[in-house]
Amino acid sequence: MKRGPKDFACAGGSPTFASTIPVGQLYFPEWDQYEAAVRGIIQRRYYSNHGPLVRNLESRVETYLGVRNALVVANGTLGLYLVALALGLQGKVIMPSFTFIATAQAFLMAGIEPVFCEVDPLTHHMTPEAAEAVLEDGVCAVCAVNLWGGTANLPGLEDWARSHRLPLIFDSAHAFGVQRAEGMVGRFGRAEVFSFHATKVMSATEGGCICTDDDDLAERIRNIRSDNGIRRPVNVALTVNGRMSEAQAAIALMSLDDIERRVANNRNIFETYGAALATVPGVRIVEPNGVVHSNYQNAVVEISESEYGLSRDHLWAILRAEGVSVRRYFRPGAHRCVPFDKIRPQQLEALPVTDGLCQTVLQLPIGARVTPADAATIAGLMRDSHVHAEALRPRV
Amino acid sequence: MKRGPKDFACAGGSPTFASTIPVGQLYFPEWDQYEAAVRGIIQRRYYSNHGPLVRNLESRVETYLGVRNALVVANGTLGLYLVALALGLQGKVIMPSFTFIATAQAFLMAGIEPVFCEVDPLTHHMTPEAAEAVLEDGVCAVCAVNLWGGTANLPGLEDWARSHRLPLIFDSAHAFGVQRAEGMVGRFGRAEVFSFHATKVMSATEGGCICTDDDDLAERIRNIRSDNGIRRPVNVALTVNGRMSEAQAAIALMSLDDIERRVANNRNIFETYGAALATVPGVRIVEPNGVVHSNYQNAVVEISESEYGLSRDHLWAILRAEGVSVRRYFRPGAHRCVPFDKIRPQQLEALPVTDGLCQTVLQLPIGARVTPADAATIAGLMRDSHVHAEALRPRV
Repeated sequence: MKRGPKDFACAGGSPTFASTIPVGQLYFPEWDQYEAAVRGIIQRRYYSNHGPLVRNLESRVETYLGVRNALVVANGTLGLYLVALALGLQGKVIMPSFTFIATAQAFLMAGIEPVFCEVDPLTHHMTPEAAEAVLEDGVCAVCAVNLWGGTANLPGLEDWARSHRLPLIFDSAHAFGVQRAEGMVGRFGRAEVFSFHATKVMSATEGGCICTDDDDLAERIRNIRSDNGIRRPVNVALTVNGRMSEAQAAIALMSLDDIERRVANNRNIFETYGAALATVPGVRIVEPNGVVHSNYQNAVVEISESEYGLSRDHLWAILRAEGVSVRRYFRPGAHRCVPFDKIRPQQLEALPVTDGLCQTVLQLPIGARVTPADAATIAGLMRDSHVHAEALRPRV
Repeated sequence: MKRGPKDFACAGGSPTFASTIPVGQLYFPEWDQYEAAVRGIIQRRYYSNHGPLVRNLESRVETYLGVRNALVVANGTLGLYLVALALGLQGKVIMPSFTFIATAQAFLMAGIEPVFCEVDPLTHHMTPEAAEAVLEDGVCAVCAVNLWGGTANLPGLEDWARSHRLPLIFDSAHAFGVQRAEGMVGRFGRAEVFSFHATKVMSATEGGCICTDDDDLAERIRNIRSDNGIRRPVNVALTVNGRMSEAQAAIALMSLDDIERRVANNRNIFETYGAALATVPGVRIVEPNGVVHSNYQNAVVEISESEYGLSRDHLWAILRAEGVSVRRYFRPGAHRCVPFDKIRPQQLEALPVTDGLCQTVLQLPIGARVTPADAATIAGLMRDSHVHAEALRPRV
């Protein structure tokens, strides 16, 4: 059936999807698999405080990523906070503004002021040049962010940070399972932090993981996290409960067993979008940057209003009406969010690339709750929205 | 069988308990009950971000305690931290040194310096007079701690705090289900924070809960906790991921269904200890203070070396050798722990009552993994240790 302008839900038609297609990963085991994993917890009656499943998970992640220390935590935000504490950071940290607000908030928890840098308009990642451009007195570290199933220029950032004697941290919340030519993400900088939230390809429902090859840093983090006396005690100034429970670890272990299948499913969906959207004017799908193997965790497009005929916000409203839970991450940039707009007012108008991306980027559904057929349908809606742009614009 | 000195494990005998009797609560559902609770999560595929079980748990706790707002969080330490942030505290907070170190660490996370006060030698709780004695410039709040299935003098502390215009917070980590003549614990001060750790009578394996009758404070806490857009947005400076997952909420809901039975079991154990130890010289069991209904979460004794014939540390070593996981909480006092010994060296020798309790207090096993028969056996070991004190002292 050919879709006319009146068939769109925003113009009075029926929504294409009867129940909303979620944007996130949301992979989760079936009941039988879940039962197998958690029955043991109940038999052992060991629920928290660095139990056997948490220890197994850490060991499995260390092997999978080839990193000396994997330290699982209650969530990724706390992970970044623990790294900041364990490194004893004081002052300011350079980071991109184009990131989930938790990157900046985690450092603020540790009393550290973010200094926001620009990102590359094509890759959406920060560069050494962008960091150099905002270097100022009081900067004590750099936190780069790996986005959209890809990475920043990790060796370039490592060189730049080394030349300025600044510790480099990666917010790799999105990047579990991503591989560069130099090795798996998780082994770069002083430490990397993954998110194991339900919306990530590797999930503990809530959770996160700090990876580092630095054994002394890992010991400090273990003590700050509060493992209840596991391994060598280190005198740390502040101890924080950042523990992951056994139940969360059980889910993450299943998630790790299954990760290749999940990435393959993501890839099918991503390639369906890519093929179907390649001929739609003004829509550019963002390819994973700088990697030999992506987790395809995100399907992100940039909308050029002049070529597409509708703005990103128009398209967002059209697709939401059709039952497609698209998201406008990240909007606004962290530099425009409370409290950073007040802490660093001098940066409000200093990041035009970031401001532009916040107006043009759209996340499309991908993950366990989406099929390639759904992706084809969503891409079709996007194509038809372009065709009927003039008629649809007044409706949204 | 009459126990002679050579029958003790520390003197070469066999341990009384083949597998260690744990000290904590460690209540947990049987598999069938667990399955009933968590199958729904897998059917709904909603795992985090303030899901239906978290909302149900908050509503149930509000009803159970008669409080306007219950806000569940990832753990109790984060709960205290969120309260400190939401109240905008800056400066110093008066609190007892005789508490779990997390009380002090949670405020330090928020950049606040603890000012430690003494506790009453009989009840182990801080008093208005103890707070008054340490009042100094820069104090912006008071955090009292409710211990051992009892409470501090809550109305007295409320009067004192009001007279100094200081917000009063309660660390009620141990006190879920405890009732005073004036009402349930959870409704006092500006806010109270419970722990739902596995070692507590109300358990989510890891978890905590903030209670407050102040709706504005609750809204700020909800936004700092990050509920992903649930309810009214409030501009807060710092947002922190303090969310509880659905799986944790499922366990807490079962825990709440079952709490009266669990308290009854605790009470049986507590009374067994009380009756059996009443005639042992130098052993005083600490009765729940100031309450009409206790949760009997702890069985705590004070050991007077001069009357008992052995020190608390001697008895600790004897019982550990027998397979009884007794604990010397809290030792040392928070004022002697890193980093508070350096932050407030002027307080190192200022708290003799606290230092004394840290030398004489012992926690005995109570909870799901202990029977009244175990308690009678442990009390018997304590009686016989007194009888054979001279012979046992060189062995430990």
